[in-house]
Amino acid sequence: MNDSRTAVVLLSGGLDSATCAKWALDSGFRCLALSFRYGQRHGIELERASRLAAHFGIKEHQIIDLPLGDLGGSALTDQRIAVPDQESDGIPVTYVPARNLLFLSFAAAAAEIAEARDLVIGANAVDYSGYPDCRRPFFDALESAIDLGTKSGVESGGWTIHTPLVDLTKAEIIQMGERLGVPWQLTSSCYDPGDTGQPCGVCDSCRIRAAGFAAAGVVDPVVPTDH
Amino acid sequence: MNDSRTAVVLLSGGLDSATCAKWALDSGFRCLALSFRYGQRHGIELERASRLAAHFGIKEHQIIDLPLGDLGGSALTDQRIAVPDQESDGIPVTYVPARNLLFLSFAAAAAEIAEARDLVIGANAVDYSGYPDCRRPFFDALESAIDLGTKSGVESGGWTIHTPLVDLTKAEIIQMGERLGVPWQLTSSCYDPGDTGQPCGVCDSCRIRAAGFAAAGVVDPVVPTDH
Repeated sequence: MNDSRTAVVLLSGGLDSATCAKWALDSGFRCLALSFRYGQRHGIELERASRLAAHFGIKEHQIIDLPLGDLGGSALTDQRIAVPDQESDGIPVTYVPARNLLFLSFAAAAAEIAEARDLVIGANAVDYSGYPDCRRPFFDALESAIDLGTKSGVESGGWTIHTPLVDLTKAEIIQMGERLGVPWQLTSSCYDPGDTGQPCGVCDSCRIRAAGFAAAGVVDPVVPTDH
Repeated sequence: MNDSRTAVVLLSGGLDSATCAKWALDSGFRCLALSFRYGQRHGIELERASRLAAHFGIKEHQIIDLPLGDLGGSALTDQRIAVPDQESDGIPVTYVPARNLLFLSFAAAAAEIAEARDLVIGANAVDYSGYPDCRRPFFDALESAIDLGTKSGVESGGWTIHTPLVDLTKAEIIQMGERLGVPWQLTSSCYDPGDTGQPCGVCDSCRIRAAGFAAAGVVDPVVPTDH
């Protein structure tokens, strides 16, 4: 790969996006990291995203303010909807409407300005099967839309939304991250962490993380605490 | 058409989106209007959008703050790039990277929360042939992406991005707006208006507007002034 190619990497502070960022760097991309402040209940993931970017030597890390909270409609952005503490069927209430569409639209704008055409997102269709915007058919359609709707796409095509984790189980992602040397201690997965960032251990995301580390045979350095 | 159907209409304060909003209302949609504050050089278009929404009796008008100015890269959002005062070939410097992609992503999020699946945008491929995100193939691809990437799309499909003006010349849009009773005096088209909103008369957008009114045989109540 031409090592001057630039990729815009969505970095949330979670273990999936951390693994993706390391994957992109090891694949030879120069990386721009993009994070979003979108009315989350917790700021800890942005702090972790910044620490991860610094750890990886990614100098350009942009945090975009997205007023999704104003739109409401998700337990992750709307204080009136409770984060569930047990598994649910179908599309979870933590689903944020059009979230990955919005995130990737910003990534495309940032990439076009940086003369890049590679976007990297840590979406995963296996453990998050309830989220429609984590599946490859969505990314394929959006890739076409970006190719058709941007200056660089029209001029020379070739936009790619990289989803290196999309078909992996959480255990396989953790095994991949282990091989790549992802600093798990800097990552945060909890939907409802305590004031100092300690995970709750009971939300969907904590349960998936714990099961993933167990199945991968890796010890998670981040330990949930009751809070 | 079922008159309880809701559409999210992108309302910029220009004559195209004003014509679209009236088209949507006359088509029987209940309308939510969405406007964006995205680092424009001028706030006049948001003021006009609000006045248009009020004029049309649209009660829900949401203005979203988009930090596109931080990304830079367009004469419309970057103070360092001059707005051209003569016609240019190819994609103009006033092109904002991924703008309609971002706008429609927000519209999709707002629509999903409102349980709507209809988006209306006043894009036009004839007079804005230089903008790749104003052409129907882009909207078709994005429609597919939204159908595949949203909860309501996966559950029951049927998202539509309405582009009633896409194949019309500016003169035809103005004739359509005349028939619909669009209040032209409330619309603003200029890329570089004066302090009180008066158009410059020389930018691309002013030239297209003037030529359109002339070709339509309609008198524009908004008169440019030298400033």
